[in-house]
Amino acid sequence: MALSFGALDQLCVNAIRFLSADAVQKANSGHPGVPMGQAPQGYALWDRFLKHNPANPDWPDRDRFILSAGHASMLLYSLLHMTGYDLSIDQIKQFRQWGSITPGHTERGVTPGVEMTTGPLGQGFANALGMAIAEKMMAARYNHPGHEIIDHRTYALVSDGDLQEGVASEAASLAGSLGLDKLTYIYDDNKITIEGQTKLAFREDVAALFRAYGFKVFGPVDGNDIDALSDALKQAQAVYRKPSLIIVETTLGYGAPNKANTPSAHGEALGEEELAETRQALGWEYGAFEVPSEVTAHMRLALERGAQAEADWNTRFAAYEDAYPQDAVSLKRDLAGELPDDWDAGLNALFDDFKDPIASRAVSGQALVALTERVDNLTGGSADLGPSNNTRVMGRGSFQAETYPGRNIHFGVREHAMGAISNGMAGHGGLIPYTATYLVFSDYMRPALRLAAMSRFHSVFIYTHDSIVLGEDGPTHQPISQLLSLRSIPGLTVIRPADAQETLEAWHFAVAYDGPVVLVLSRQALPPIQRMNETTALHRGGYVVSDHGDTPDVILIGTGSELSLAQQAAVELAKERVNARVVSMPSWELFHAQPVEYRNNVLPPDIRARVSIEASASMGWERYVGMDGAIIGMTGFGASAPGPELLVRFRFTAENVQSTALSVLERLR
Amino acid sequence: MALSFGALDQLCVNAIRFLSADAVQKANSGHPGVPMGQAPQGYALWDRFLKHNPANPDWPDRDRFILSAGHASMLLYSLLHMTGYDLSIDQIKQFRQWGSITPGHTERGVTPGVEMTTGPLGQGFANALGMAIAEKMMAARYNHPGHEIIDHRTYALVSDGDLQEGVASEAASLAGSLGLDKLTYIYDDNKITIEGQTKLAFREDVAALFRAYGFKVFGPVDGNDIDALSDALKQAQAVYRKPSLIIVETTLGYGAPNKANTPSAHGEALGEEELAETRQALGWEYGAFEVPSEVTAHMRLALERGAQAEADWNTRFAAYEDAYPQDAVSLKRDLAGELPDDWDAGLNALFDDFKDPIASRAVSGQALVALTERVDNLTGGSADLGPSNNTRVMGRGSFQAETYPGRNIHFGVREHAMGAISNGMAGHGGLIPYTATYLVFSDYMRPALRLAAMSRFHSVFIYTHDSIVLGEDGPTHQPISQLLSLRSIPGLTVIRPADAQETLEAWHFAVAYDGPVVLVLSRQALPPIQRMNETTALHRGGYVVSDHGDTPDVILIGTGSELSLAQQAAVELAKERVNARVVSMPSWELFHAQPVEYRNNVLPPDIRARVSIEASASMGWERYVGMDGAIIGMTGFGASAPGPELLVRFRFTAENVQSTALSVLERLR
Repeated sequence: MALSFGALDQLCVNAIRFLSADAVQKANSGHPGVPMGQAPQGYALWDRFLKHNPANPDWPDRDRFILSAGHASMLLYSLLHMTGYDLSIDQIKQFRQWGSITPGHTERGVTPGVEMTTGPLGQGFANALGMAIAEKMMAARYNHPGHEIIDHRTYALVSDGDLQEGVASEAASLAGSLGLDKLTYIYDDNKITIEGQTKLAFREDVAALFRAYGFKVFGPVDGNDIDALSDALKQAQAVYRKPSLIIVETTLGYGAPNKANTPSAHGEALGEEELAETRQALGWEYGAFEVPSEVTAHMRLALERGAQAEADWNTRFAAYEDAYPQDAVSLKRDLAGELPDDWDAGLNALFDDFKDPIASRAVSGQALVALTERVDNLTGGSADLGPSNNTRVMGRGSFQAETYPGRNIHFGVREHAMGAISNGMAGHGGLIPYTATYLVFSDYMRPALRLAAMSRFHSVFIYTHDSIVLGEDGPTHQPISQLLSLRSIPGLTVIRPADAQETLEAWHFAVAYDGPVVLVLSRQALPPIQRMNETTALHRGGYVVSDHGDTPDVILIGTGSELSLAQQAAVELAKERVNARVVSMPSWELFHAQPVEYRNNVLPPDIRARVSIEASASMGWERYVGMDGAIIGMTGFGASAPGPELLVRFRFTAENVQSTALSVLERLR
Repeated sequence: MALSFGALDQLCVNAIRFLSADAVQKANSGHPGVPMGQAPQGYALWDRFLKHNPANPDWPDRDRFILSAGHASMLLYSLLHMTGYDLSIDQIKQFRQWGSITPGHTERGVTPGVEMTTGPLGQGFANALGMAIAEKMMAARYNHPGHEIIDHRTYALVSDGDLQEGVASEAASLAGSLGLDKLTYIYDDNKITIEGQTKLAFREDVAALFRAYGFKVFGPVDGNDIDALSDALKQAQAVYRKPSLIIVETTLGYGAPNKANTPSAHGEALGEEELAETRQALGWEYGAFEVPSEVTAHMRLALERGAQAEADWNTRFAAYEDAYPQDAVSLKRDLAGELPDDWDAGLNALFDDFKDPIASRAVSGQALVALTERVDNLTGGSADLGPSNNTRVMGRGSFQAETYPGRNIHFGVREHAMGAISNGMAGHGGLIPYTATYLVFSDYMRPALRLAAMSRFHSVFIYTHDSIVLGEDGPTHQPISQLLSLRSIPGLTVIRPADAQETLEAWHFAVAYDGPVVLVLSRQALPPIQRMNETTALHRGGYVVSDHGDTPDVILIGTGSELSLAQQAAVELAKERVNARVVSMPSWELFHAQPVEYRNNVLPPDIRARVSIEASASMGWERYVGMDGAIIGMTGFGASAPGPELLVRFRFTAENVQSTALSVLERLR
């Protein structure tokens, strides 16, 4: 593997440039400029440093590569295609078309070799931190002297757009604090942004800034100087206890005679004419989508190197298995995303423990203790609200620069990065991440939640202080719109348990389910719900808690802390000979996944007298109460006052449920 | 005004400490530690530097003070009370109680003298930037040589929690780029966070970091050394073309013998015993809520100074009025939040211009040009998507460090800070800010949007690329949950216009309405809607576009780009002798504000055959179609493919509207 910048290197770099530009041209849509500028970086990293096996994108000890500026997707598709991943030239020709595996922005699970879904800027930067955390934590857990079985690096290619996003700053600060030395960012500084020069809005001294964050900074390196970049990458590998940033000065749309260095090279095809002129300017004699055979021959050496690297690792893993058989079993299980056989034994033992009222956040805290005893790779923390979110697991230590075996992560007051780091950890594999903050601050991390849902990551998002009842902190801290907003994200399962029993079941579901789950928990104590049947049916999303007669006159639907109000009201209504069915609806998503027969059993379509009760936005409950029922919810923001008083002021009382039910019945009579 | 640190200063500082601690103790809820640590900073700034008039919190040329860590609200309430604002000791005793004007976190519009609603961390940091931008921009517009009629500073007291939030990093980077030298941050570095020591997750070199952002950095200053802090504040006033950061090392819960420097001093009352011991430790001989008369006498000198300062300004304003009568009229109007008489003339002239299909973002761009010609203080920009959002107004220049008269703001790729800056600009007064990005990225700025709604700011949030029809960029960029999520925020008016006419009316509403308005606009061209009546009734939120008979058989409800599908379907249904009413529903909020008679006229309650069509999350439309209707919407994420193909693939076609309507009618027969 020659390190000199020879003619073959140049050919490979230009092959990436033209394959990218050709694909954008054919789609007549996309972003040619960044791949053309970043081609040398992509090539240098992938050809000379990246440890990977194109024949097995899932090899656990591969280096991770994240293209944070996902709009440069053609750079990655070119690299994947050329190095021998299962991505054909025909798929490249189908760039941005229906049904192709080459979407406009890189999507995990769609294209072999794409580690993360990127495009929304800044996310990939923080995802990379999550991957580096996962590597360090798993290495600390599983490696033994002479058996460095987890030993890989994380690389991310980031743009000025990424660096401008706050989520990247949050991640940079935490990465520096954690001293993650196997994390390397390559910063593509092309000085151009959609509105013009980046200096319009971005004049910071990036090198000084990252040094202040605790990074080792290299460069600026000339974007076409592959040897200089290789040198920096090599040095970065030797840095101890610091992440690295390599600044590379590039040219957006490099080679395009009229459009290079202009915003127009960013987000639209070059045009046939400009593309032809670019071919001329760079002396590219090949046709559209043509990859010279020398390039293919050279870049597909990655297959050989990868096969060799994986074979070496397999040999080392066999030795590891001999020396540490139990760890090997456990590691394989973690990597396969499987749970130990008795994973839920501790959790199940808790079910009889809660006879008195208790906050669901407190039950969640105990569930977490019980679960992590057996599910050791369930790991995470809070955005500096651990004591309030009940997420700190005593005895498991803190994950710090000095203590990588620690399992409690301190994210700092950085909700957004926390979400994106969780995604990176889940994307790495081997860990089940959980994160926590107040429900109202879920707003801060929505872009990451959305990508968790799109990527179907197995991860748990814990949100406590779930309603106005948190009290005196007031409207700034009281969630109103958040519950509905979370429910509206496709692929996210949102659960708001009503008591201890439902909370334990919710945790059971969250750990067993292979997708992102949101747990919405109370600050205040919740009484145990009296159920007709001993067990709940939380996994069905909604179920009948109690009936007061054969055919219900009215259905009262509650979630979380308000379910008990429904139940109290039902008792009172029974005294007035009104049969009120009480339905617990902890999860809309799970309920909707049930067969229609089940749903119609719980909510018979002909019973239109319905009342929903939830101390959150009333919007959305029309789904269950229709046009004839009534919704007890919030239509404005909350207020600063003790929680019990707020319940009365905003009419979340059993009396109001009762009288609302009666007036609905009256109206329908 | 003595600058020496004398006994009276000490008495004032301790008075702030104990009034704060007493109020938290009485409420048995709140955050005593930060006010106790920050009391010297609050005192030094307010007593020696802040230009304000407690008798008139609305005096336009006052300095602005933002307490970014809103949980330290008692610090600000103490200062307001002691310097003579209309905030009685009885209100302080009602801290965190229902109906008081002393809520748990500081809220604009609730307490006289509170400039911004804070509490969600990081927001106040970015709000301060918005205020400083407003000051610079208005000074550039209105000041003349010898007539510095706009000349005030912005101060923000920020915590480590604020600095950890990405929105603060975004704002710091932009503040440095813009060189705003009348912006001063005081950073309270108390080394303690809820989970323990800040260094658990925060080890960056803050001074070096802010220097890299382009700040002048002072300190670290001892938190009890008022003179040293005063010296730094004085020096900060002389800095040219750089914002300032003063680092102050403080003690959380200063004076509390057992709880100082511990996380427990952060978020709960000290307890009677500890409070008594603190009194002893600091030699405080006064009772609960007692402010020594010397303190009151000294601190209320602010009233005299303030009256004098405002009187001076009034004199100068009179001279300004003489010299620049037209500017004076315009400035007074801007400050009063009023519009010029002919403000909408240019906009109204556009109504006949759009006979051909055109994207609503393009119409919006033209509306903005027409509006800003007359409404000069309508100002803003995009998070680096100006050319796509159609928000750049040619001829109005760029607001840059070198060109403060410019009216186009380049926020950079910083959606979250953009939202918080908009809030700061609106909170400053005198400007109507607008901001823009793609609809999907509204997620990045939700915490700021929520505070805009809570603060009822007159501001416009423009979101283009409003559905899957944006096409090839794929699911990462296609909004699904965002529309419903925005509608669920109380106090926000969300408008998704269906064609050029509705877009112009939406802009008309947004400029005239005194509250935050969200405009949701298409990337693709929309045909002009054929209406029964010539005018729309957009301001009513929903209205009948067309009827095909006397009594509708079925109601088709559409918004934005999908309204035309409803109309095409209605024409086809008429051929089958089905009378379909077409309702345009651009704004749920405006429709719900209508009298029930109007709403029942548009959507007669007895007509249950209803179909909604919106290329967004289907969730929520049950509100209008009930349990008997049907919803044509999205239930998952989108895909990367050309927009027209996606419409067919996801069944947003007139044919599907038609057949869905027929099957609803069939079901109800």
